[in-house]
Amino acid sequence: MAVVTITRLARFCAAHRLHNPALGDAENARLFGKCNSPNYHGHNYTLEITIAGTPDATTGYVMDFGDLDRIVDEHCVNLLDHKNLDLDVAFLAGTLSTAENIAVACWRQLEPALRARGATLARVKLWETENNYVEYDGR
Amino acid sequence: MAVVTITRLARFCAAHRLHNPALGDAENARLFGKCNSPNYHGHNYTLEITIAGTPDATTGYVMDFGDLDRIVDEHCVNLLDHKNLDLDVAFLAGTLSTAENIAVACWRQLEPALRARGATLARVKLWETENNYVEYDGR
Amino acid sequence: MAVVTITRLARFCAAHRLHNPALGDAENARLFGKCNSPNYHGHNYTLEITIAGTPDATTGYVMDFGDLDRIVDEHCVNLLDHKNLDLDVAFLAGTLSTAENIAVACWRQLEPALRARGATLARVKLWETENNYVEYDGR
Amino acid sequence: MAVVTITRLARFCAAHRLHNPALGDAENARLFGKCNSPNYHGHNYTLEITIAGTPDATTGYVMDFGDLDRIVDEHCVNLLDHKNLDLDVAFLAGTLSTAENIAVACWRQLEPALRARGATLARVKLWETENNYVEYDGR
Amino acid sequence: MAVVTITRLARFCAAHRLHNPALGDAENARLFGKCNSPNYHGHNYTLEITIAGTPDATTGYVMDFGDLDRIVDEHCVNLLDHKNLDLDVAFLAGTLSTAENIAVACWRQLEPALRARGATLARVKLWETENNYVEYDGR
Amino acid sequence: MAVVTITRLARFCAAHRLHNPALGDAENARLFGKCNSPNYHGHNYTLEITIAGTPDATTGYVMDFGDLDRIVDEHCVNLLDHKNLDLDVAFLAGTLSTAENIAVACWRQLEPALRARGATLARVKLWETENNYVEYDGR
Repeated sequence: MAVVTITRLARFCAAHRLHNPALGDAENARLFGKCNSPNYHGHNYTLEITIAGTPDATTGYVMDFGDLDRIVDEHCVNLLDHKNLDLDVAFLAGTLSTAENIAVACWRQLEPALRARGATLARVKLWETENNYVEYDGR
Repeated sequence: MAVVTITRLARFCAAHRLHNPALGDAENARLFGKCNSPNYHGHNYTLEITIAGTPDATTGYVMDFGDLDRIVDEHCVNLLDHKNLDLDVAFLAGTLSTAENIAVACWRQLEPALRARGATLARVKLWETENNYVEYDGR
Repeated sequence: MAVVTITRLARFCAAHRLHNPALGDAENARLFGKCNSPNYHGHNYTLEITIAGTPDATTGYVMDFGDLDRIVDEHCVNLLDHKNLDLDVAFLAGTLSTAENIAVACWRQLEPALRARGATLARVKLWETENNYVEYDGR
Repeated sequence: MAVVTITRLARFCAAHRLHNPALGDAENARLFGKCNSPNYHGHNYTLEITIAGTPDATTGYVMDFGDLDRIVDEHCVNLLDHKNLDLDVAFLAGTLSTAENIAVACWRQLEPALRARGATLARVKLWETENNYVEYDGR
Repeated sequence: MAVVTITRLARFCAAHRLHNPALGDAENARLFGKCNSPNYHGHNYTLEITIAGTPDATTGYVMDFGDLDRIVDEHCVNLLDHKNLDLDVAFLAGTLSTAENIAVACWRQLEPALRARGATLARVKLWETENNYVEYDGR
Repeated sequence: MAVVTITRLARFCAAHRLHNPALGDAENARLFGKCNSPNYHGHNYTLEITIAGTPDATTGYVMDFGDLDRIVDEHCVNLLDHKNLDLDVAFLAGTLSTAENIAVACWRQLEPALRARGATLARVKLWETENNYVEYDGR
């Protein structure tokens, strides 16, 4: 009864800005540098979603990729792709849109939907650029 | 006595089809979609093999890459590369050739051969396309 | 009136075998080596389609990517993805499925459809593995 | 007297939106789809700058990369990185920010600066996502 | 209080040679093969530095990337980039420059500096080529 | 009679230093910066070799990849891989080892050998890092 993880990569292009409204402009500029640029900048994000489980005896799948894609699209990608993360995304409202916070918020979007489907979310990994990524495993 | 993992990437090009002979054609088509296409399709697979151990005081190696390559070639790559995973590979006979099952089967090919050589297999990771991979660590 | 090229990458996973039925088995094995493996192998192909033109004054596009995708899907990707290039693809019938021949055949599929749409196909580039590709520009 | 091209990759993260103010909202939505999303989206752009010339007998360089980087930073990257292409970039003012138009505008920024330095710009190539890019060579 | 890891990729280009001065030339050649080539060879190394922590409530950061970059540059990249790992790097003196040993040495460079800054180093990963990497997490 | 180009990627790991012995140390340091570091640094180079021709009617190949690999290995890769470009490579003797000069030298190594085999070398492209490459087509 081997436990295997499967990982799917999903991509979305979005605008954002790092700005904490509780702080003044000078403090925001000091803390966030060019990421505080007022009119937003953006990224091609890559989100890796990892599911853990035992391959099904009939299908050989831990989880059907079609089902996984539908859940990821419904709860994350369709809500994030070609959007402004600070203005357009209900599940990020009031959240500073750092990669750390986006990854945790995506976990919280995906985990209940996957659990309801009988699947176990093991990890999300979010690439912001080719030189930095974050990982979250629900702990 | 630091424990380090080393990982080698190996590549193979293979054909396969997802089809469970215990099920009818309609059920196979429903479960596997285009992966059930009757005359096979194929992939450039990338297999990452991870060994855990303490670097040897004389060589600085956890394991000599030449030895690792020979074991990976003999027990996996030479048997998989430019083959049909469903027809040509003895160690996959009777196995639905999902990435999950191939990864577990590669682990079972490699682990005893590496153990006999004094090396500890820690993880295999198999990329099927640039958008999905599976991982197995023997549990 | 700048002339710009735009390039779209499309991907398909397919099985194939190099085998010239006009030759004997020994000669096929000698010419094609492991690519002649009888039960097929396969690849994750990447096809780059390049269109040349002047950006439209109203849209800033050389060609709408949605239109381009539809033509590429209809005339290439839908016919190639998750198929056996030697058995399933009408536009490759009787063609040895080398990367060279596939690229030329894709050009011949795409060029009239794009011309009918008012677009100028400038180049196709086909990656068979990460270590080899071919290019064709219609000459 | 060999003529060689050298190419440098530069990267910038920016927000933008495709919207032609001469058209109504419905027409913009029809033409640009999700790229017309009102609050912007964004990309990790990669710009490849290609210089043609004969390697210098003393340095072996077609052009010193430090000089090239300074020109590219001054005339492109510093003006584009972590900016909104539609609001923050003087050299794109009034320009629909398609990849085609950005590439041509970057050429026009870089070509005179490089010519003044004695260098010959041969091509710019702009990647918007990993699946599409545009090229312009000044014609 | 989610615990997230953030990872930064840093790159350095360096020369090295695998040669154990306690062994004779023939034994070195046998153990290290072409990596023992007397006049050095080299690599484009990629070092991934992973920090674990809870995103700060004010900044949304586990750790400011600017701070992280300064520590990584001061304690690793500036000492390694465009250097000979066997001759120029004090923190590698007397160390066989295998990827395993470089990764452990980088950990030992980075861990105290990060701890002094209040950050928790979770993992270093070092790519030597696109086909092999090592990982170390301090155990 | 379509003319297609085929491209093969080959990789080699080498050490080098940019230093013109006709100049003083200060001038070398000024011209070459960290690339003048005295004890060498190194790179994972990728060499792309492009052949132009008409696919053979019998094989569908512009050129057999096995033959191409043998020529590239014999005349370039075996002479460059795990070597010091400034000390170990006869065909680079007296040549400043910039990417420009290495690319031209590889062309001159490969072109006669390929011509003798009936093949037409169309282009060599040399990546020094993931951020810079040079191209040469024999002109």
